[in-house]
Amino acid sequence: MSKLWGGRFTKQTDKLVEEFTASIGFDQKLAVDDIRGSLAHVKMLGACGIIPQEDADKIREGLLSILADVRAGRLEYAVENEDIHMNIEKYLIERIGPVGGKLHTGRSRNDQVATDMHLYLRREVKQIIALLADVMQALVDTADAHLDVVIPGYTHLQRAQPVLLAHHLLAYVGMFSRDAERLQDALKRIDILPLGAGALAGTTFPIDRQLVAKELGFARIYENSMDAVSDRDFILEFLSDASILMMHLTRFCEELVMWSSTEFGFVELDDAYCTGSSIMPQKKNPDVAELIRGKSGRVYGNLFGLLTVLKSLPLAYNKDLQEDKEGMFDTVETLRGSLALLAGMIRTMEVRKERLQQVVKEDFSNATDLADYLVRKNMPFRQAHEVIGKLVLYCISNRKFLTDLSMDEYKQHSELFESDVYQVIDIRTVVDARNVLGGTAGPQVRQALERAKGQITSLGQWVEQALEGEI
Amino acid sequence: MSKLWGGRFTKQTDKLVEEFTASIGFDQKLAVDDIRGSLAHVKMLGACGIIPQEDADKIREGLLSILADVRAGRLEYAVENEDIHMNIEKYLIERIGPVGGKLHTGRSRNDQVATDMHLYLRREVKQIIALLADVMQALVDTADAHLDVVIPGYTHLQRAQPVLLAHHLLAYVGMFSRDAERLQDALKRIDILPLGAGALAGTTFPIDRQLVAKELGFARIYENSMDAVSDRDFILEFLSDASILMMHLTRFCEELVMWSSTEFGFVELDDAYCTGSSIMPQKKNPDVAELIRGKSGRVYGNLFGLLTVLKSLPLAYNKDLQEDKEGMFDTVETLRGSLALLAGMIRTMEVRKERLQQVVKEDFSNATDLADYLVRKNMPFRQAHEVIGKLVLYCISNRKFLTDLSMDEYKQHSELFESDVYQVIDIRTVVDARNVLGGTAGPQVRQALERAKGQITSLGQWVEQALEGEI
Amino acid sequence: MSKLWGGRFTKQTDKLVEEFTASIGFDQKLAVDDIRGSLAHVKMLGACGIIPQEDADKIREGLLSILADVRAGRLEYAVENEDIHMNIEKYLIERIGPVGGKLHTGRSRNDQVATDMHLYLRREVKQIIALLADVMQALVDTADAHLDVVIPGYTHLQRAQPVLLAHHLLAYVGMFSRDAERLQDALKRIDILPLGAGALAGTTFPIDRQLVAKELGFARIYENSMDAVSDRDFILEFLSDASILMMHLTRFCEELVMWSSTEFGFVELDDAYCTGSSIMPQKKNPDVAELIRGKSGRVYGNLFGLLTVLKSLPLAYNKDLQEDKEGMFDTVETLRGSLALLAGMIRTMEVRKERLQQVVKEDFSNATDLADYLVRKNMPFRQAHEVIGKLVLYCISNRKFLTDLSMDEYKQHSELFESDVYQVIDIRTVVDARNVLGGTAGPQVRQALERAKGQITSLGQWVEQALEGEI
Amino acid sequence: MSKLWGGRFTKQTDKLVEEFTASIGFDQKLAVDDIRGSLAHVKMLGACGIIPQEDADKIREGLLSILADVRAGRLEYAVENEDIHMNIEKYLIERIGPVGGKLHTGRSRNDQVATDMHLYLRREVKQIIALLADVMQALVDTADAHLDVVIPGYTHLQRAQPVLLAHHLLAYVGMFSRDAERLQDALKRIDILPLGAGALAGTTFPIDRQLVAKELGFARIYENSMDAVSDRDFILEFLSDASILMMHLTRFCEELVMWSSTEFGFVELDDAYCTGSSIMPQKKNPDVAELIRGKSGRVYGNLFGLLTVLKSLPLAYNKDLQEDKEGMFDTVETLRGSLALLAGMIRTMEVRKERLQQVVKEDFSNATDLADYLVRKNMPFRQAHEVIGKLVLYCISNRKFLTDLSMDEYKQHSELFESDVYQVIDIRTVVDARNVLGGTAGPQVRQALERAKGQITSLGQWVEQALEGEI
Repeated sequence: MSKLWGGRFTKQTDKLVEEFTASIGFDQKLAVDDIRGSLAHVKMLGACGIIPQEDADKIREGLLSILADVRAGRLEYAVENEDIHMNIEKYLIERIGPVGGKLHTGRSRNDQVATDMHLYLRREVKQIIALLADVMQALVDTADAHLDVVIPGYTHLQRAQPVLLAHHLLAYVGMFSRDAERLQDALKRIDILPLGAGALAGTTFPIDRQLVAKELGFARIYENSMDAVSDRDFILEFLSDASILMMHLTRFCEELVMWSSTEFGFVELDDAYCTGSSIMPQKKNPDVAELIRGKSGRVYGNLFGLLTVLKSLPLAYNKDLQEDKEGMFDTVETLRGSLALLAGMIRTMEVRKERLQQVVKEDFSNATDLADYLVRKNMPFRQAHEVIGKLVLYCISNRKFLTDLSMDEYKQHSELFESDVYQVIDIRTVVDARNVLGGTAGPQVRQALERAKGQITSLGQWVEQALEGEI
Repeated sequence: MSKLWGGRFTKQTDKLVEEFTASIGFDQKLAVDDIRGSLAHVKMLGACGIIPQEDADKIREGLLSILADVRAGRLEYAVENEDIHMNIEKYLIERIGPVGGKLHTGRSRNDQVATDMHLYLRREVKQIIALLADVMQALVDTADAHLDVVIPGYTHLQRAQPVLLAHHLLAYVGMFSRDAERLQDALKRIDILPLGAGALAGTTFPIDRQLVAKELGFARIYENSMDAVSDRDFILEFLSDASILMMHLTRFCEELVMWSSTEFGFVELDDAYCTGSSIMPQKKNPDVAELIRGKSGRVYGNLFGLLTVLKSLPLAYNKDLQEDKEGMFDTVETLRGSLALLAGMIRTMEVRKERLQQVVKEDFSNATDLADYLVRKNMPFRQAHEVIGKLVLYCISNRKFLTDLSMDEYKQHSELFESDVYQVIDIRTVVDARNVLGGTAGPQVRQALERAKGQITSLGQWVEQALEGEI
Repeated sequence: MSKLWGGRFTKQTDKLVEEFTASIGFDQKLAVDDIRGSLAHVKMLGACGIIPQEDADKIREGLLSILADVRAGRLEYAVENEDIHMNIEKYLIERIGPVGGKLHTGRSRNDQVATDMHLYLRREVKQIIALLADVMQALVDTADAHLDVVIPGYTHLQRAQPVLLAHHLLAYVGMFSRDAERLQDALKRIDILPLGAGALAGTTFPIDRQLVAKELGFARIYENSMDAVSDRDFILEFLSDASILMMHLTRFCEELVMWSSTEFGFVELDDAYCTGSSIMPQKKNPDVAELIRGKSGRVYGNLFGLLTVLKSLPLAYNKDLQEDKEGMFDTVETLRGSLALLAGMIRTMEVRKERLQQVVKEDFSNATDLADYLVRKNMPFRQAHEVIGKLVLYCISNRKFLTDLSMDEYKQHSELFESDVYQVIDIRTVVDARNVLGGTAGPQVRQALERAKGQITSLGQWVEQALEGEI
Repeated sequence: MSKLWGGRFTKQTDKLVEEFTASIGFDQKLAVDDIRGSLAHVKMLGACGIIPQEDADKIREGLLSILADVRAGRLEYAVENEDIHMNIEKYLIERIGPVGGKLHTGRSRNDQVATDMHLYLRREVKQIIALLADVMQALVDTADAHLDVVIPGYTHLQRAQPVLLAHHLLAYVGMFSRDAERLQDALKRIDILPLGAGALAGTTFPIDRQLVAKELGFARIYENSMDAVSDRDFILEFLSDASILMMHLTRFCEELVMWSSTEFGFVELDDAYCTGSSIMPQKKNPDVAELIRGKSGRVYGNLFGLLTVLKSLPLAYNKDLQEDKEGMFDTVETLRGSLALLAGMIRTMEVRKERLQQVVKEDFSNATDLADYLVRKNMPFRQAHEVIGKLVLYCISNRKFLTDLSMDEYKQHSELFESDVYQVIDIRTVVDARNVLGGTAGPQVRQALERAKGQITSLGQWVEQALEGEI
């Protein structure tokens, strides 16, 4: 089949080259966006009188019929037509005749493909924010439903101070809330129209870029044509945000995996989110949590892949840029799958309350409060710290916890101890003592929950509005 | 020397362990910020009556005297004091006595170090935006001074269409402008106060976090203590933005290196930004451009390093987080050096105008306009493309350019060619024909320059204001 | 459909979970290797009397019939059967009845999948070495055919000293030769058998691992079962070697792209390896070279992806490890495509000899030899360097090259110059003066070519032998 | 101060440029290697009669006096002398007069710095292998000392099958053994001499590279001068091997951290390898294990950094290559510190045997053996798996373990159960049942230990020999 650019060439493209350079294998995901962009472009061409209105109408009809086929999964693509743009153009000409060729007036594949990707990513990022909001909701609901549950709080994976489970879960709401913020900021730089940049320098046709921008709902227009066709920042920024988000997921999934272990036993993940072993009948594996954790690798890899591709590329378009797509698609799909499953996994997991009630009694995480107790009795903090350190050592040797010590044993370590000490080291007292903004005390956490609910509601409204313009 | 946490321990820390885990070798860069944070904290402790006002005053004086020594480079740090916080606390107690120990009331090293880093990065990011604005200014000035210079525009490093040098430079202004936007957005998530989160769960002292936030000029407060001490998103986001920015620098420096080659010869970098060879007397090497390009590696590496550190870390603080600093410092210094040098290199480079006037005549980058010419004479575009493709082949075989062809030779390829063709393929006509928003035509570029100047002015004002609160 | 591990579960797997955790979408590439491993396993089961010989025979027949279908592309896979192993087992049981279930005796999916990947990668790495040898051959042939062609040698992309094109090309033969060495070394750690490790701890059946190893041609056996099922070093090492190899390709392709530019014009890539522009009729773009260069990104990304996946994973098998496959497959295919195309591109490219003859005369790359000339006349090197530096400046101001200077002009710069100076700065003299092992002088390069040919022959023989055992 | 290459330049280097491009801040680590290389070079220059023998002798003496000062830490370096080579040359000329300038005859900084790095890395890699051997020894000793200790074996962090602690530790010996192999293979490509390659094309002086190679103990010589000065594969390969090694350390340290938690409680790390909290008196944090785990980030980052630097660099030397050093130094120091500490941490950690004896009784990790028991009684495996799955569910509901069930309860689930079942599910029986090569049975592990000891002995001997030639 003859190429659309064959005039200057004396030889055919090598078959293997055709396969190696063709992008239709993956850029077909852009079919709907490509047609969407073309519809706006042709509308403008007609409105500006660059092509006759009747031609514009014919092209529009042709595009709509192809769109219908794309949506119905009826369109087949050919490698020899290189990419999604050429494939659709071929179909268009096939259906409406040579007039279809006029669609490409005043644009080039360089600005066309950039436009497709902006459209695609704009929509997908909004969807991802919606999924994030749902995960946040699942966390808030779970927190709300277990407001009385205390779990050990860790630093260095050593028990540090007891916290409310709700408090722990709200830490993740904080992270996801920043993720959503970041993606919203990224949208500002995704929501820019490249079309009209031509191959690199603009076009000689009197096109109206504002009109196209309005038609496609773009907030801004690239103000430099060379920048427009060679910019892939918007993908990089998305991949960065996605990497940070996946990092958050690794932290949470790491905890879910640990919490599901025999040793921790804090939660029981639902059967629906676990799988078994073909060999070991007793196994119930937290596969989904592990797999989400593992999928951080591909997202990090996609980010570094594209950073590598772009390194040292001179202006303007270079074929290397074709490597921008697969990592983007893969990341979008990874985020969508991971977030959807995570929400379900959170909603269905069982918190093992009875076990936790026992667990939090069996450690020294109330030691800080004992030191603070001595400080309030005017012992300098550093000395109090020393006294309690030795008291803990004493407990370990005698296989006791602080609550098990007699008044005598306390007095042996410091005369300042009095009978009110037992109240101070009660786990619930310890939790509620951290009664500052952002602390784990019950009232603080209840307020934090309310703020989080408000935030999620606002985010939900934002998403709804943002998605309105999208197809 | 006895540790501040030794009570529970029966053995000394291994010497090698002390060195391996100590961070004072690098976190001393935080000295000023650490004291700044402490000053705000102690002010609050006094104001809230958590410690007596006279103690607060004494501590404040002690801190100020240490600050003076830090600034004068007079302070020495000891590895056995682990980190900058402990080092300063030791000095404080040394200078004002045991009352100095009260400074640590109601905080922990976990929220303290996070606060230091937020303060440090907030200031540095603003400085980097200022440097970015200066690079943009240098580009705009150079563009402005060479508004009549045409250079080849490339795609695939093949000459595509001629563009104004100013247009090419403005593409980078576009990129740097997005970099500045991104860093401004990142500031929103840097500008959050962690202090008050304690070790992980808040504190039992009735502290006032709002007061500290106000004192330090923070726009927001972390609303969850576990999130506050374990969040490093703000560094990751900075490193991502820095990586994208460095990628832009590699593209520009790659071009400067090529443009300085014998083969291109578009510009001559100033001697001050080049070095020679110890062996080859003729060499003048664009070292600075190469080195900036190469420094992309360390910034990408720093980003990936921290993404790796954070992967799969459970809440809340873990010692792994200590690895967050060196990459951040290194990236800040790399950006500062690279941007400052780039601005100077742009300002001093000589554009070889005469050579460029010759260069742009010796290619086929006016071929698209010739095809468009035929299209305007009603030849379908695909056919016109074919005709001109063959015409180019004809020229190559006969060692001619399109402007060298006789009317006869034109007619042999298509009867539609007439004598007005020569006007159409004149380089300056070609440039000015791309007269659309964002295109390379003179009037468009002049408008773009004006917009860029306005943008830089606004950015400059923003920076000035933003830096006001900083020390 | 009921799972093979459902006994302990009270609920069905969520549908989305099934899709998210299923690997059949990509691990079907292991079908042939999976069956190959099963054939060896069942042969051993029969030979050791663990299952009756007639059962072993039946299973073998069943597997062979499935293998035939796999090879003919007739097998269809189902997502609900999770992975390639389950899919094949289901087919086996379908075809030969419940006895097919005995195939899984004494093994687990954990050691089975590891075995599949070792088999797959062992074969593919050998193929890649064969392709590398072919690229080396293409370079050597091209070098051989242009032994008289001199090109500028660069440092800092500034002309440094002239070199033979053959010398330049042989630098890449050196790199690829190390790549082949590295892959051969990696094979030592790919060529180890995991089967027999069971799920993690070995198996209770009296299997004979040596017999399986011999049957599958493995040189070594994993000596620790926990290591066997959780080791992915062999993939990481391959991905590292692949990244270094791709880095070499970016360097060469960068040069091909530059050499194909109007400015350099050193080579003309064959039409078959270039594509055109849909807009610009004159364009002939070195797409293949660019795309190979760009594909470095995905290979680097695959390496970092897997390094990330493995970070902090406790022993032994974790579901995260499922993420080891796609990056490996993608890298294998990228290397195969890139190397095959590169060899063809080298073989068909035209070296523009006439142009190069002119090009090498128009620079100062003979300046070092002029300095050495003065040194031989007893001027200290540092002074000679200074004199020639000033001479070059003089030439630049007067638009001359060193060969254009009169004896008078030479004498003005140093009295030591005599008429023999012209011979010394002749380009071919300059090239041949570097007559040391590894230098660019004609005789040295001819010897280097002979050594390279010998190396390639040996490598070819190694590959042939190595591939003998593979299917 | 005047540059050694100033002749061609009309302006001074910008001060900031001088600082930005200077490498003396970090390449001073190469001082000893630089002098070592120079000593060999000057010996050859004398021997070949390229410089008079008395000059060679003077230079040698001068170099030795500088070396003595370097070793004593008495040498100071100046930024305006750019790098370590220039700094040392300046000192040389200062000490022995202008004759010192002759040292640079027949070489360039490009081949000189490459030689320094090959020498440096060759020595350091050998040291690292020695440290690896010591870690392996520590693991083997610990395994040996606890041959009777059983711990839970995990997949998916769920208890799978019990294993010997020794077996678990030997899995890491397997990993480290491959690390050592890999580094030994890398040495083959580190142990190549670049000196003699000149700036890029060789040298015009009749040098003898074989003689230099012999003097410095290099096994091979770069056979292409352009490859010699631009090759950084040897560093990349080291960084890759280091990344894989660090990945292994993250896995082990992750386990140490978990095992030290209250929940697991399998081991107690020595106080010397832990630190406390300034706030929480009870804390004993496994800082060293965490920090080693976290340091994976910088090593991964260093690898990716250099891969980025090298991407798309044309031949031969480019200034970007200066960015090869800091990551290499940092990685060497990270590995040295991490391995040394790890060995100590292993040797001093206490295995909590009593607790482990209890721990392994409280799970279902003997379920596989119960299924195998039914298989031996002729139940098909898939059915046995189902039966035991339900039995486990029954236990969970009734808060029992398999060893707690009465014969009646067994019979209710299958008539095949008989009283010999209790012997089968005894933990030690379960462990010893996996009596295949690489399995966890006592006799197998004892054999594996013996093999490991032999391996370590060989490795130790290799290191000793390899280090002999080094300074």
